[in-house]
Amino acid sequence: MKFISGQIYEHTFIGLIQGDKVLDIHKAESILFELATLPPTLLECIEIGERFVTHVMQLVEWSKKAEDTESYLYPLENVKILAPITKLKKNIFCVAKNYYDHAEEMGDKENIDEHIMLFSKAPTTVIGPEEEIDPHLHLTNELDYEGELAIVIGKKGKQIEKEDAMDYVFGYTIVNDITARDLQSRHKQFFLGKSLDTSCPMGPYIVHKSAINDPKNLMIKTSVNNEVRQDGNTKEMIFPIEYIISIISQGTTLEAGDIIATGTPAGVGKGSHPPKYLQPGDVIEIEIEGIGVLRNKVKK
Amino acid sequence: MKFISGQIYEHTFIGLIQGDKVLDIHKAESILFELATLPPTLLECIEIGERFVTHVMQLVEWSKKAEDTESYLYPLENVKILAPITKLKKNIFCVAKNYYDHAEEMGDKENIDEHIMLFSKAPTTVIGPEEEIDPHLHLTNELDYEGELAIVIGKKGKQIEKEDAMDYVFGYTIVNDITARDLQSRHKQFFLGKSLDTSCPMGPYIVHKSAINDPKNLMIKTSVNNEVRQDGNTKEMIFPIEYIISIISQGTTLEAGDIIATGTPAGVGKGSHPPKYLQPGDVIEIEIEGIGVLRNKVKK
Repeated sequence: MKFISGQIYEHTFIGLIQGDKVLDIHKAESILFELATLPPTLLECIEIGERFVTHVMQLVEWSKKAEDTESYLYPLENVKILAPITKLKKNIFCVAKNYYDHAEEMGDKENIDEHIMLFSKAPTTVIGPEEEIDPHLHLTNELDYEGELAIVIGKKGKQIEKEDAMDYVFGYTIVNDITARDLQSRHKQFFLGKSLDTSCPMGPYIVHKSAINDPKNLMIKTSVNNEVRQDGNTKEMIFPIEYIISIISQGTTLEAGDIIATGTPAGVGKGSHPPKYLQPGDVIEIEIEGIGVLRNKVKK
Repeated sequence: MKFISGQIYEHTFIGLIQGDKVLDIHKAESILFELATLPPTLLECIEIGERFVTHVMQLVEWSKKAEDTESYLYPLENVKILAPITKLKKNIFCVAKNYYDHAEEMGDKENIDEHIMLFSKAPTTVIGPEEEIDPHLHLTNELDYEGELAIVIGKKGKQIEKEDAMDYVFGYTIVNDITARDLQSRHKQFFLGKSLDTSCPMGPYIVHKSAINDPKNLMIKTSVNNEVRQDGNTKEMIFPIEYIISIISQGTTLEAGDIIATGTPAGVGKGSHPPKYLQPGDVIEIEIEGIGVLRNKVKK
């Protein structure tokens, strides 16, 4: 199940991808069930929990038997896909140096697997697929990409055990953890260099966890202008998903709709000799197996 | 003008301190103006901007002429004061090492004034005055306090010039940037050790900027169990308020209701020899001139 936040002819909606069509969940509900029960945003629907997912599955079954589906089943090509959660309730949680080879290319392989390193990105960084990344040329000469699998938390929890962690996952999406390397190193703490507006492209879908057989074995690939730069697998994570959820939640309550970016494999621009930083006009595509392709262009 | 979020007999409200009384802004509005126009939360009122402040000033004038004020003017002693913004829309922005003497006591005086260091605290950390701080004994042996002046942003802005920065300030409050020093150093990036639940006591008031003559010359004092530990002045900040607002907003949009904690003076627990970390039962009071006293106890 691939959920989107979408827009068609000025109408914004929550959708479910159905092949080359998108089901408008609210419209389908009001037509098929003659009752609108769901809240307006995908974030609020995720807060409902698994009941939301069951409800949507019922909707899909009904829609298969229905005639005249045009009013709620749109051709995908006519839909503009937005960031899946357009207004986050807090900063994005981010794991730094979670792949050995990336830690090495950043010149920091010492004790890397001892303790997880976490920082955050401001929610004002979020943009959707195909939206343009502002290069902030007045601030940085070292804009870099980082393709990452992101966890979408499905329910509130604290002191979550590793064994129970997957119960707290709603699904997965892709983020591009755009980073101004010069700001990142100049200000020591990562926050500022990671929080420029438009520096967190996200999407295109939130894929429900039921659709992902093994999130710890997914190909993850980033290309810039069709040149493959990152080619990894989520099985290479130093701290796997369950560990990340458990360690954060030992002291910090996780809430439905929280986004955790799980770190990036080797192959970022800074890792090349000489570095290959992003330039205006560059197109970055991040593909994660079973999840999709997130594509954005750096503004010219 | 001192604004609060308050609670009286299960009724939560936005209030304005009036001596030993609190004006319930919404109730006063509906009784005196016979029209309720203001949104329910202080955050949303701040988003309205200066028009909100003018409106409240009118209310106060009317209330002075009114009889039967008991239904909206409560004795302060009957009111429970909550965190001024109970649900933030993003993490708290925090400046690290913004006072020389504190940078020195933390063993890090090198190049400290060259570039501002910023990190964030999750919004789940926020508690109100008199609420208990969870010592998280299963996670940390080095819980520390940091008394700080916090800026409350009043309107959205990007690339704000230093000269214009004060136009973007709504007012000020106090935060206690509670920190687990062991987590802070173990995880390198500050985020996790700064984001334990209850680790951001905030309040008691948001004082409108019009009530503060010079925010760059305010006594700031922290005591633990009545022993003065921090005794500084906001004039000692390395990066003053205008600079902080300007530097963050060069790449990151600031929004109404954003909170920026401006760093702490010397005298934290870690700075003592041997360190004086917080223990269950300890009472921390942070006083900032013209702003108030924020008092919290560590849970026994």
